[in-house]
Amino acid sequence: MISEEDNILLIDKKGKKYMVKCRGKFHSHYGVLDLNEVVGKDYGIKIKTHRGDEFIVLKPTFIDYIEKMRKMPQIIQSKDAAMIVAITGLNRGDKVVEGGIGSGALTIFLANVIYPGKIYSYEIREDFAEIAEKNIKEHKIDNVFIKMKDIYGGIEEKNVDLVALDIPEPEKVVENAYDSLKFGGFIFAYTPSIEQMLRFREKAKDYFKIKTIECILREYESKKLGTRPKTLMVGHTGFLTFGRKIF
Amino acid sequence: MISEEDNILLIDKKGKKYMVKCRGKFHSHYGVLDLNEVVGKDYGIKIKTHRGDEFIVLKPTFIDYIEKMRKMPQIIQSKDAAMIVAITGLNRGDKVVEGGIGSGALTIFLANVIYPGKIYSYEIREDFAEIAEKNIKEHKIDNVFIKMKDIYGGIEEKNVDLVALDIPEPEKVVENAYDSLKFGGFIFAYTPSIEQMLRFREKAKDYFKIKTIECILREYESKKLGTRPKTLMVGHTGFLTFGRKIF
Amino acid sequence: MISEEDNILLIDKKGKKYMVKCRGKFHSHYGVLDLNEVVGKDYGIKIKTHRGDEFIVLKPTFIDYIEKMRKMPQIIQSKDAAMIVAITGLNRGDKVVEGGIGSGALTIFLANVIYPGKIYSYEIREDFAEIAEKNIKEHKIDNVFIKMKDIYGGIEEKNVDLVALDIPEPEKVVENAYDSLKFGGFIFAYTPSIEQMLRFREKAKDYFKIKTIECILREYESKKLGTRPKTLMVGHTGFLTFGRKIF
Amino acid sequence: MISEEDNILLIDKKGKKYMVKCRGKFHSHYGVLDLNEVVGKDYGIKIKTHRGDEFIVLKPTFIDYIEKMRKMPQIIQSKDAAMIVAITGLNRGDKVVEGGIGSGALTIFLANVIYPGKIYSYEIREDFAEIAEKNIKEHKIDNVFIKMKDIYGGIEEKNVDLVALDIPEPEKVVENAYDSLKFGGFIFAYTPSIEQMLRFREKAKDYFKIKTIECILREYESKKLGTRPKTLMVGHTGFLTFGRKIF
Repeated sequence: MISEEDNILLIDKKGKKYMVKCRGKFHSHYGVLDLNEVVGKDYGIKIKTHRGDEFIVLKPTFIDYIEKMRKMPQIIQSKDAAMIVAITGLNRGDKVVEGGIGSGALTIFLANVIYPGKIYSYEIREDFAEIAEKNIKEHKIDNVFIKMKDIYGGIEEKNVDLVALDIPEPEKVVENAYDSLKFGGFIFAYTPSIEQMLRFREKAKDYFKIKTIECILREYESKKLGTRPKTLMVGHTGFLTFGRKIF
Repeated sequence: MISEEDNILLIDKKGKKYMVKCRGKFHSHYGVLDLNEVVGKDYGIKIKTHRGDEFIVLKPTFIDYIEKMRKMPQIIQSKDAAMIVAITGLNRGDKVVEGGIGSGALTIFLANVIYPGKIYSYEIREDFAEIAEKNIKEHKIDNVFIKMKDIYGGIEEKNVDLVALDIPEPEKVVENAYDSLKFGGFIFAYTPSIEQMLRFREKAKDYFKIKTIECILREYESKKLGTRPKTLMVGHTGFLTFGRKIF
Repeated sequence: MISEEDNILLIDKKGKKYMVKCRGKFHSHYGVLDLNEVVGKDYGIKIKTHRGDEFIVLKPTFIDYIEKMRKMPQIIQSKDAAMIVAITGLNRGDKVVEGGIGSGALTIFLANVIYPGKIYSYEIREDFAEIAEKNIKEHKIDNVFIKMKDIYGGIEEKNVDLVALDIPEPEKVVENAYDSLKFGGFIFAYTPSIEQMLRFREKAKDYFKIKTIECILREYESKKLGTRPKTLMVGHTGFLTFGRKIF
Repeated sequence: MISEEDNILLIDKKGKKYMVKCRGKFHSHYGVLDLNEVVGKDYGIKIKTHRGDEFIVLKPTFIDYIEKMRKMPQIIQSKDAAMIVAITGLNRGDKVVEGGIGSGALTIFLANVIYPGKIYSYEIREDFAEIAEKNIKEHKIDNVFIKMKDIYGGIEEKNVDLVALDIPEPEKVVENAYDSLKFGGFIFAYTPSIEQMLRFREKAKDYFKIKTIECILREYESKKLGTRPKTLMVGHTGFLTFGRKIF
């Protein structure tokens, strides 16, 4: 049952999504929605604007929360976060350490995958930590622990399944990550540039069995003349390097 | 604590993985391992061959189970399965219907993501169902329900979050999938060929807001002369088409 | 020696290119150039604006002419035209028939490659033919023969090395192309959409040994944080289908 | 008219190509061809095996010569060589300096494009020079001049349109290339690894306006279930860096 405190996802007839608190009026291109009508109802209902156009009311998924953050700079995209699952087999109950919480997008992704496992996020910038904390609270997930500490200075957790790094110099964390990981555990570094990727590989290869990939999405669209890959695409986000502790 | 009934993952010093039942002797390039030594211990230990070479003993992840199946033809790869998470936000507790269990690789992936949610898998070929059941049992996951029924004939479940199709003619399931999905739910079709993808899109676009992608992985390797994308790569697995029920 | 009739290429100190007739004044961000100073000189000289900034003066290549046309819609890019050379071995002295001259970009490319061979371009739209003729004349190449005829209606040339098609329904030209080509000759169809490509392949495979490719360019850039593939790239221009007459 | 000295291209009914001297017998899967029957005839004829199967007889293109060399290691592919034309506008009459003749594949490509312009190839390894010379002679092209000199030691030619480098350390040639090029001329470096590419860019960016690309070909195939990009593809050959002398 939807309460006034909930974030709801409104979808218009074209498929456009809006995430809003379930309160007051929502002004759309199709007219005004009175969100008070939604309180007390269940997700999946339809609601009409004063002009009679329908919206559906959905419970936002963790991907909806992450997409909302996308407008912020330098967010790891869901496609790249999902590769962590595909390659490491990260799963419920796992313990994760994150270096650089940024806006919390990767944090939310991983927190959902490992729930009820715990994720410990190291961050030194207070402004980032605040934004991330706000984003995480909105999403009402309670297995994230933000630590105002520099991950370059050490990792306190032991027996960790994954150390995920989205920081400029992940190579500086290699030794500490090695110590905090259990055997079979993974280190993951997201690096936008080639030079960062090379530096991390150079250091990490002595501690881990490493593998670097890029995940490239090609999207198709249908137009009058037919179906085709989109003319413009995102050609690069970042290099994803994985290392497994096996020696 | 590891028992004789468990599958364990052995990793040699080069990183090569072997999934075996924890019984008897294991003959490797580095000599013989006596797996009885492992029974009663915890995951993460090391074990030595009679020649003194070390292996680590790990608990296999669901990705290890899926990778083991890869040798079978036509398995959806983990990279493609992970896109379902990235795009739909599929999460614990969700209800999934699968059309075509195949060898059970996608089934295991989705079952892990949604646990304790349930997945209902329709399959008409008994040989496939048997193999899948065996694979799923090995993995000891209990939220998969195999139904020996033709998904072209109808879907019995209601209020479903995802209908995932890995069958030759997914377009035939569009209407039934629409009826069984909740608002905001997704249909997903994996189609290796262009023609299949076009036929599915043509039908699905009248019921769902659709999007087709390919997920292409580019892997890097380091050799004497330097680092570079691998010369040979998997250029195509399948087209991934998603439709969301929003009208 | 540069004359008033020549097109010259001016390049500023950032590498930006401007193709202009060698007459009068040229107003740039760096000040005014008096092009009369250039007349009678040789290509490769430098010229200064009234503010003292230097430009170099070059003879435009055929690629410069094609790039200038790029602003027009639906121009075959040089990367795709170059694949014709890479795959067919098209060379000086060859005889080409082109279906659909468009703006003349592909025409200029091919005319340069085969010179002094001849290219016969079929076009039914007078507006296209006029623009193309203007573009070709600017480039001062004399081995292009524009024919105001519908290539769907037949090809008059015989013993042709290449029939190059940039028209909506290239499958309608397959039989005529077969008749006009010499043994070992090639048909080439540029099709933006998947459906067009499939229709052409379906028809052409009975007459030719066929091969379809896409040519995808990935460009790298250097920024403060390092070098990386460009974030946004052109993901698709068209499908290139080649058929060789060998039976 | 075909003579006994000529290389001919035989194509069987499946499209398979064989380049042979036009002498004696040729043994194929479809039976024996008597090549004496071909002498004195024109290209484009058909010839039958003793079993009655037909082959066509063609004049090899320069691409056929290059493809034949492909079996040798580390040959620049035609798709990459063609990018030189697409990006620099290299054309007949141009003057080229090549560093590292290798087996002569790039040499033959460029020599054909610029004919009757001249190409000067620097090579220090006698074994490479010999193989290249043999390959070039077979192809009967007379505008290639092999120089047994180290291009790291200097370039003697002036007023050059293109310096093309396929050597391990192209950055060492940057200054000499700059001096030998005319304004508007290009330097081109083919580097398989990322580190080589970065080193060349770092040096070249101070002398030239630079641009690095990769040219990736995606090929499609038709099978029973439909058309699709090939499962296995060549994911990487080399990085192509171009620099234009504009300052």
